[in-house]
Amino acid sequence: MKFSFSNSVNGMKPSEIRELNKMASSPGIISLGGGMPSPETFPIRELTEIMEDIMKNNANLALQYGNTLGINPVREEIAIMLEKVEKIRTTMENIIVNSGSQQGLYELGAVLANPGDTIITEEPTYVGAVSAFSANGLRMEGIPVDTMGMKVELLEERIKALIGSGRKPKFIYVIPTFQNPTGYSMPVERRKILIEISLKYEIPIVEDNPYGQLRYYGQPVPCLRSMPGGEDIIYLGTFSKVMTPGLRLGYTVAPKEVMEKFNLIKQALDLATNSFSQYVAYEYVKRGIIYKQVELNKILYKKKRDAIIKSLKENMSDMAEYSEPEGGMFVWATVKKNIDTREMIPAAIKNGVAYVSGQAFTTNGTQKSSMRLNFTFGTVEQLDEGIKRLTKTLNEQA
Amino acid sequence: MKFSFSNSVNGMKPSEIRELNKMASSPGIISLGGGMPSPETFPIRELTEIMEDIMKNNANLALQYGNTLGINPVREEIAIMLEKVEKIRTTMENIIVNSGSQQGLYELGAVLANPGDTIITEEPTYVGAVSAFSANGLRMEGIPVDTMGMKVELLEERIKALIGSGRKPKFIYVIPTFQNPTGYSMPVERRKILIEISLKYEIPIVEDNPYGQLRYYGQPVPCLRSMPGGEDIIYLGTFSKVMTPGLRLGYTVAPKEVMEKFNLIKQALDLATNSFSQYVAYEYVKRGIIYKQVELNKILYKKKRDAIIKSLKENMSDMAEYSEPEGGMFVWATVKKNIDTREMIPAAIKNGVAYVSGQAFTTNGTQKSSMRLNFTFGTVEQLDEGIKRLTKTLNEQA
Repeated sequence: MKFSFSNSVNGMKPSEIRELNKMASSPGIISLGGGMPSPETFPIRELTEIMEDIMKNNANLALQYGNTLGINPVREEIAIMLEKVEKIRTTMENIIVNSGSQQGLYELGAVLANPGDTIITEEPTYVGAVSAFSANGLRMEGIPVDTMGMKVELLEERIKALIGSGRKPKFIYVIPTFQNPTGYSMPVERRKILIEISLKYEIPIVEDNPYGQLRYYGQPVPCLRSMPGGEDIIYLGTFSKVMTPGLRLGYTVAPKEVMEKFNLIKQALDLATNSFSQYVAYEYVKRGIIYKQVELNKILYKKKRDAIIKSLKENMSDMAEYSEPEGGMFVWATVKKNIDTREMIPAAIKNGVAYVSGQAFTTNGTQKSSMRLNFTFGTVEQLDEGIKRLTKTLNEQA
Repeated sequence: MKFSFSNSVNGMKPSEIRELNKMASSPGIISLGGGMPSPETFPIRELTEIMEDIMKNNANLALQYGNTLGINPVREEIAIMLEKVEKIRTTMENIIVNSGSQQGLYELGAVLANPGDTIITEEPTYVGAVSAFSANGLRMEGIPVDTMGMKVELLEERIKALIGSGRKPKFIYVIPTFQNPTGYSMPVERRKILIEISLKYEIPIVEDNPYGQLRYYGQPVPCLRSMPGGEDIIYLGTFSKVMTPGLRLGYTVAPKEVMEKFNLIKQALDLATNSFSQYVAYEYVKRGIIYKQVELNKILYKKKRDAIIKSLKENMSDMAEYSEPEGGMFVWATVKKNIDTREMIPAAIKNGVAYVSGQAFTTNGTQKSSMRLNFTFGTVEQLDEGIKRLTKTLNEQA
């Protein structure tokens, strides 16, 4: 049988990160490539207890099909948690529980835009968002990011130009806090301007906030959804960084009319999210374990963040500029020499270190001399050794 | 903010089943509407043990992100199981593990066809397939089903006509064994013809087999994928009916070139399936519990199948024709009077019984006088009482 495939999937490229993870799983390779939390942060004892309790008291519901939008108890607890940690005021009815927030991104691409439509992202932006929006056939227009996140002064001009050419963007996708891949955050002034532009041109904002709770330095900045005028912003959160990623749980907060469309697309995508995982998350939040675990994660990740920055300072400061993020999971390094970091990957792997090249985070082939370096997965020693191997690799380049 | 939505999602209708489940969860209503397995079939003790073992010995992997196509141990076990129970010869590399086989259907719609393309289904067909294919913007051409499944003698003519009008179908979607919603199975002769037509016109077959192992009467019929010439057939299986649905696990067997595209779309959809659920399924198959559980399920469901058929015979035989399925989860009843079963739903709910109307399983508004009756969820007593209430409702219609 000769198979023919859809245009959208023919247009998609394999994720560099997936390939890297495969290579990086070879023994001896230090991976700064993935976006994985450290298994040290998995609350195994607490989760084991919770699972036992669920299987004892609630197995018939936890093992059965659940509601399309999620089981009500966890949706209620998420609403309570969001008010507590992000000052977001919402209710259960405005929350859908997804199979990871990756699914939330895919749903938005399917629901808010038609194939061929234009949306705005940061440049560079999260590689999984590029994948989700590409699969939906969307055209991404990237607004450059500097040390204060998306350069909002360029945003309005771009929107005007796009409207002028009949391509009004369907939404604006941003990761305002500890951005993936750069690690930078938008100050509150830029956030205000972003919301103003969104309201002025009636273009919805999609705020992705997987790392907001992982702050190691500096003062918290309010998330967009909690700010005046931000009530209609679509907000994505995840349990992957504050519980575990393997249980695949994320959630989207959205106005009622968007939620109705989620109800349709979610049914088509996978009927409903894993009930068992949802009951685990419900107990995890309800019992308050999440708040204690986040504090522990912050202590651990702060050490790791300090270790990679120290090693970068000691080894690579002549060769590269790098972000010094106040939170999150990533450092963004841009080499001063004219090196294509994608082409350098085989040499790096040979030296026993992996990273993701800057190009992976764009759709237009820019960011060639940048790299995303993850600091949450490796140990302090591995991070230092990884940066040394990376420095060696850079030195070997002509 | 005024939101505008994509055409595909605007074209989708809320699932009648979802609405029904909501109504049917009111106390006192007997639901013959859903497609839920009985909680009596959940192997709670065995799953509790497995979960404890995983959390003790393998938590770091089971709680971490997994590979896009699934964790290797469960893919290997699925290959072994498929050879054992369905005589399907395949390998791990040809298996993707999905968040339920609903996700497998969505992936196929996204990968094998472009929006606007035509595919062939049975008529009536599984409501979730209608949802998945609609969300991908596909046009469905239904080939009528009789007591021996899809009328393959009509298939070739339809294919020729479609090719003649420039709409060559991208694939043929069938549930050959204990079809949803009718409960009928295709005899082996029709299966042979179906495979011949597929090969002659180079149109791939997608075989959905959620109920194949749940046979209560008669001799097994080979699945299409295991038959000569069926090597390239795309095969969908699920753990929902032989373990539990709440852990959301299904799988697709496909040729290598299709698997490469699954790898891309799965990454976009939700990165990877729940690792914890996959390790549970791995142990469940590896320890052989699945085979014992299926035997127990068959004993239970056979009793329930007999109970609903007995009650139909005693109460409704003057008023309706109904299938007497040898397996699966559903009876298909067609009333003799000219009654629209969708319009009758409120009256039925008032009488304390729910079902799904025939129209839900088509895209063209046919099947108006039919109903799908589930017999796996209710108790023997509830099934009998449900049929009595349904008979009363039919009698009340003018």
